[in-house]
Amino acid sequence: MNVREHRIYLDHSATTPVDPRVVKAMRPYWRATFGNSESSHAFGREAANALERARQTVATVLGCRLSEIVFTGSGTESDNLALRGAAWAARQTGRGNHILSTPIEHHAVGHTLNQLRDLFGFDVELLPVDQYGLVDPDDVAAALRPETVLVSVILANNEIGTIQPAAEIGQICRSHGALFQTDAVQAPGRLALKTEPLNVDLLALSAHKFYGPKGVGLLYVRRDTPLVPAITGGHHERGRRPGTVNVAGAIGLATALRLAEEARRKGSELRSLRDRLIEGVLQNVPHSRLTGHPELRLAHHASFVFFGVEGESIVQALDMEGIAASSGAACAEGEPEPSPVLKALGLEPSWGIGSLRLTLGRSSDQTDVDRLLHVLPGIISRLRDRG
Amino acid sequence: MNVREHRIYLDHSATTPVDPRVVKAMRPYWRATFGNSESSHAFGREAANALERARQTVATVLGCRLSEIVFTGSGTESDNLALRGAAWAARQTGRGNHILSTPIEHHAVGHTLNQLRDLFGFDVELLPVDQYGLVDPDDVAAALRPETVLVSVILANNEIGTIQPAAEIGQICRSHGALFQTDAVQAPGRLALKTEPLNVDLLALSAHKFYGPKGVGLLYVRRDTPLVPAITGGHHERGRRPGTVNVAGAIGLATALRLAEEARRKGSELRSLRDRLIEGVLQNVPHSRLTGHPELRLAHHASFVFFGVEGESIVQALDMEGIAASSGAACAEGEPEPSPVLKALGLEPSWGIGSLRLTLGRSSDQTDVDRLLHVLPGIISRLRDRG
Repeated sequence: MNVREHRIYLDHSATTPVDPRVVKAMRPYWRATFGNSESSHAFGREAANALERARQTVATVLGCRLSEIVFTGSGTESDNLALRGAAWAARQTGRGNHILSTPIEHHAVGHTLNQLRDLFGFDVELLPVDQYGLVDPDDVAAALRPETVLVSVILANNEIGTIQPAAEIGQICRSHGALFQTDAVQAPGRLALKTEPLNVDLLALSAHKFYGPKGVGLLYVRRDTPLVPAITGGHHERGRRPGTVNVAGAIGLATALRLAEEARRKGSELRSLRDRLIEGVLQNVPHSRLTGHPELRLAHHASFVFFGVEGESIVQALDMEGIAASSGAACAEGEPEPSPVLKALGLEPSWGIGSLRLTLGRSSDQTDVDRLLHVLPGIISRLRDRG
Repeated sequence: MNVREHRIYLDHSATTPVDPRVVKAMRPYWRATFGNSESSHAFGREAANALERARQTVATVLGCRLSEIVFTGSGTESDNLALRGAAWAARQTGRGNHILSTPIEHHAVGHTLNQLRDLFGFDVELLPVDQYGLVDPDDVAAALRPETVLVSVILANNEIGTIQPAAEIGQICRSHGALFQTDAVQAPGRLALKTEPLNVDLLALSAHKFYGPKGVGLLYVRRDTPLVPAITGGHHERGRRPGTVNVAGAIGLATALRLAEEARRKGSELRSLRDRLIEGVLQNVPHSRLTGHPELRLAHHASFVFFGVEGESIVQALDMEGIAASSGAACAEGEPEPSPVLKALGLEPSWGIGSLRLTLGRSSDQTDVDRLLHVLPGIISRLRDRG
């Protein structure tokens, strides 16, 4: 029997396999329609037409205009374009220097804000979060200053699954005249993505998180949002993101986004499976806790901490059992310490180092969850004995 | 008979179709080996192993170390990382503020240098070029100052095909202690790419220019070259280029680069075909001139100006005949004017607006060239009559 058949993938927040329908949709764009979408001849026009079809598909899901969509090379690049672009545009017009964010952002946002602060002198302030990782919109309102130009809050956290009150935060920012950016990379197929009700000005997506190809991202840029290009070159994507457009990738992203949205609307059964997983872990593993919000969390997302155990050791032990999972713990050399996200929740190190994330997807079923629940208690127990 | 069979593609410097062997090489990485190369479990390790195989293939062609290769999302991004990364690293350490380049760079370099000048206060100086677009190494030597931190010269120009004396320029920069960056996007399959003999510190490539996929680029970063990441986020690519790595794309780039280098070593017959094309055009179209260097030019590259004709009109007329070509002329609204590259050669507007680029590739044959030579003289003549 094939070893691969026994493998269980519970790391869908890290990446997903490309949907066969997406692979098929991309196929014509390797050789048959290969033109550069900026070329004015027939080969170029065919590529440009394909790109605009992709843009139309995306615009339907996001409920936005074609001109508000920028294809990029990754979700990380999208976040960078949003933050660097908005910050530099504000500086150019002297509108202010203050940026608000949270301590639970993805590195694509967190490390970019660090560079904007350290290298470019922006004033970056991080809002507090509660024990579930929730941002309080009142805290946003209280922290906004006249010179606040940008607020960036992750829509749903990758590590702990908590979903933020983005629409409310966005409304506060808009009333105040500050731009609101959100990293929505974990959202497609799980949360509604219409941009107007979300009150966002900038929203970042990454195709490989929702069964699309790696190497393609998207940034929604609300009309009239000032943005300095973070990568400079040709006039592609209305001058906001130069570089020959990856037409196959754009088609792949658009197709995957449409399919993810269709699946979301039909309703997913992952939530009940996820709830059985959470319940099973908490019941069967002593000294275990759920991280993130118990209800306001992504439907496929379960995350835990286990007292006195090191997360990466759990991941390795599960891997030996053929189960793919991840740990949020930043395993620096020497002593392990909790990730910035878990620190922001106020978890003490003895808990915070023992982080495990299990994220379900289309391939997941009860057998996967049963197998996980069968092996995990013993693994935690053995690791505790060893420690 | 299929219309498509009659189409002739003479725009291989704009983009190329993906080689069937490259499509095949990428195939396992959509679904079978789909992991995130940063994940520590088996799915992740398989992806990481594939990525390292791709890196090994590239390292063999470039004659460099694995750690010197950074996969990016495009050639444009590679140029941006090189220039922004080196400039900001120099500023951080107070090493200097002066950057040397040329007026015939691709926009990925030219517009990035403009932003570094206008938004970030770098001192950008452009060296002169001769009537063929050649940079004189003596001019580089004369322009280098103690505070010069970076020199960027395109290896082979996209618009006029001229090949620069890069190794010589690189040697001068290295003696002086300035970094040497080159946009080598047009080079694979046409020029030797070993990085040590080229004396480069930073070298940018783009897969779709050599029968690889769009959306994947590469930056060679010589060991110990200080570089601030231009996109910030996770720790991918040794912290130099975050964002989940496009493993399929990296495999595609590596495979295409290996094939391009093999084809180059076997020798290409494009040069003689290109020479017949150049000779035919110059003989059959009155008031026509070759642009770029007659000998020191890319083997697949022919570029012309036609007195008193507008380049984009030629491209459109050729398109009506089923021939895909391009014009270097920047067709701004209203009056057409010569591209910055043609201006730098000293061409007066009556010549410079009439630019046509014909670039051959694997699909090109004598029939294509004969067809072009059959229709072009009439097109130019009719456009002149019309004008």
